Amino acid sequence: MTVLILTCRQDVTADMVVARLHERGVPLVRLDPADVPGEASLSAEYVRGDFYGHLSTDGRLLSMSALRSIWVRRPGEPAAHAPEPSEWLTAETEQALYGMLYSATARWMNHPSASTQARCKPWQLGVAHRSGFAVPPTVVTTFPRVARQFATQYRDIVVKSASGPPAGDPPVALPTTRIGPDADFAGVAAGPTLLQQYVPKRADIRLTSVGGRLFAARKRATSDQVDGRYGATGHAWEPARIPDRIARAVRDYTDLAALAYAAFDFAEDEEGVWWFLECNQGGQFGFIELETGQPIADAVAAWLAGAPNGAVRVTSGALGGHGGGGL
Amino acid sequence: MTVLILTCRQDVTADMVVARLHERGVPLVRLDPADVPGEASLSAEYVRGDFYGHLSTDGRLLSMSALRSIWVRRPGEPAAHAPEPSEWLTAETEQALYGMLYSATARWMNHPSASTQARCKPWQLGVAHRSGFAVPPTVVTTFPRVARQFATQYRDIVVKSASGPPAGDPPVALPTTRIGPDADFAGVAAGPTLLQQYVPKRADIRLTSVGGRLFAARKRATSDQVDGRYGATGHAWEPARIPDRIARAVRDYTDLAALAYAAFDFAEDEEGVWWFLECNQGGQFGFIELETGQPIADAVAAWLAGAPNGAVRVTSGALGGHGGGGL
Repeated sequence: MTVLILTCRQDVTADMVVARLHERGVPLVRLDPADVPGEASLSAEYVRGDFYGHLSTDGRLLSMSALRSIWVRRPGEPAAHAPEPSEWLTAETEQALYGMLYSATARWMNHPSASTQARCKPWQLGVAHRSGFAVPPTVVTTFPRVARQFATQYRDIVVKSASGPPAGDPPVALPTTRIGPDADFAGVAAGPTLLQQYVPKRADIRLTSVGGRLFAARKRATSDQVDGRYGATGHAWEPARIPDRIARAVRDYTDLAALAYAAFDFAEDEEGVWWFLECNQGGQFGFIELETGQPIADAVAAWLAGAPNGAVRVTSGALGGHGGGGL
Repeated sequence: MTVLILTCRQDVTADMVVARLHERGVPLVRLDPADVPGEASLSAEYVRGDFYGHLSTDGRLLSMSALRSIWVRRPGEPAAHAPEPSEWLTAETEQALYGMLYSATARWMNHPSASTQARCKPWQLGVAHRSGFAVPPTVVTTFPRVARQFATQYRDIVVKSASGPPAGDPPVALPTTRIGPDADFAGVAAGPTLLQQYVPKRADIRLTSVGGRLFAARKRATSDQVDGRYGATGHAWEPARIPDRIARAVRDYTDLAALAYAAFDFAEDEEGVWWFLECNQGGQFGFIELETGQPIADAVAAWLAGAPNGAVRVTSGALGGHGGGGL
């Protein structure tokens, strides 16, 4: 049984997991969807109730019936490397490739449907509340008046992007920025704006959940620092003990969001409370592993190497009130 | 409790349902996400575990706590009508709007997560098999050799798009086309190609499932016709009786795919077997209602007017082998 890793060519984090899988003697295939069609080929047959599918890449043939698990790391856009790329070719290739993979019974880390919803920051806040995390008061609004009231009430706030930093250079948006109640909120009408109470923090916490195994790391904050996850701050990431109620909340969250892998960011305040900031379903872990020595890549490899499951029922959208088939 | 209809301005099918909701005295708000921000505004607050959200459009204020159900018809792209549209503004607005809607407890017809997966044609074939439908032998491949073998084995086949007809004019792809084993399959290597055994049919069947209420219509086929759903063929759509095993298969399919609304296309062969061709989660129904008199718009209105539900667990991806939170 083989592990499939969907990622682009330059991905050192994937390299770390590949090394761990090799150590365990687990066969794997690495594929960039951008290489289909061309470098990589696929075929899926649906005949009289049977399904046969296979991928061919790098001189290897991978049968869908031999697929153990699928790790969606940093996949390229399907058909992006085709000689004549087009939106339509990308759409066709996406359907063909992911349709074939969805038809297999492999386990996903993470399933694309779960990931799409899990990326939605306002939705995260609701799930975080429900899971038992402390969440800083937050507003997402296009009303300048509402933004002004929020800033007046909470005084010290940050403004951040709901969809993450925009692509492109020069960037069209600011990084997470601390502002006061006297800011000019007129521009809020031009685009939904996410404002959140600033948490005076003594540390940043990054908690990585890998199929139920949790790894937390702490990095002391410099005074008044807003986002200390990346870059040099003079402090290093160190392993942190996970309070029981946080461990329970993480499990509730990943269950509700149907995530096998998730990277949580918290701000630890002066009283030691971990405030939920966000949960990144595809968050990096290499920088944490390098500084703390926590075996996260090995945990990912172990999860991917686990037995494939059959038909699993999911709980995604438990907050969303799906139609449930309307039966 | 109010119904929210997400659709563009020119949508006569939505007009039909709006009329039925008015007859029932059910309050509704119609919103085109393209009008946010600008014509329409939104605000969502997440404070100490409580969630308050509202939409303002057309002089009406809609509170998320008063939201009964959401019908995703033909929504425009968020922020498309903004004075300075951009990819990033669309991403931010999409997060803000759908994040707020996901945080409500309304019922969805259909939830966007379910729709995304349900559109995937190769995945549909697996779900259809599993639900008990007869499915014509199908292959999706980038191997010219596999395509040629399939054509030789089944002789009379059709080639069709996996992702649906491409946007743009002139079209870059053919509509569903009947071909024989002597076709030139070299081009298959340039893009995944879906080939399916041709079903000699005496009729097209369109079956519309609305929250468990099923409406089937039959249209006699002219000889050798490939896709007779639209356009003048000299035959009209007429109501059709639904065999019990088809009704059971439809319920299994919509349950597995978590679809409150679905439009199924079948080819009825000379022996009366209904062959599954595809299931469109957002398929039109106006043309069927106009010709058959079947009250589909009223069924949609009745479903939307139903009581909101709380937290519903979904079964989407039962074929996909989600990680299930990995707990």
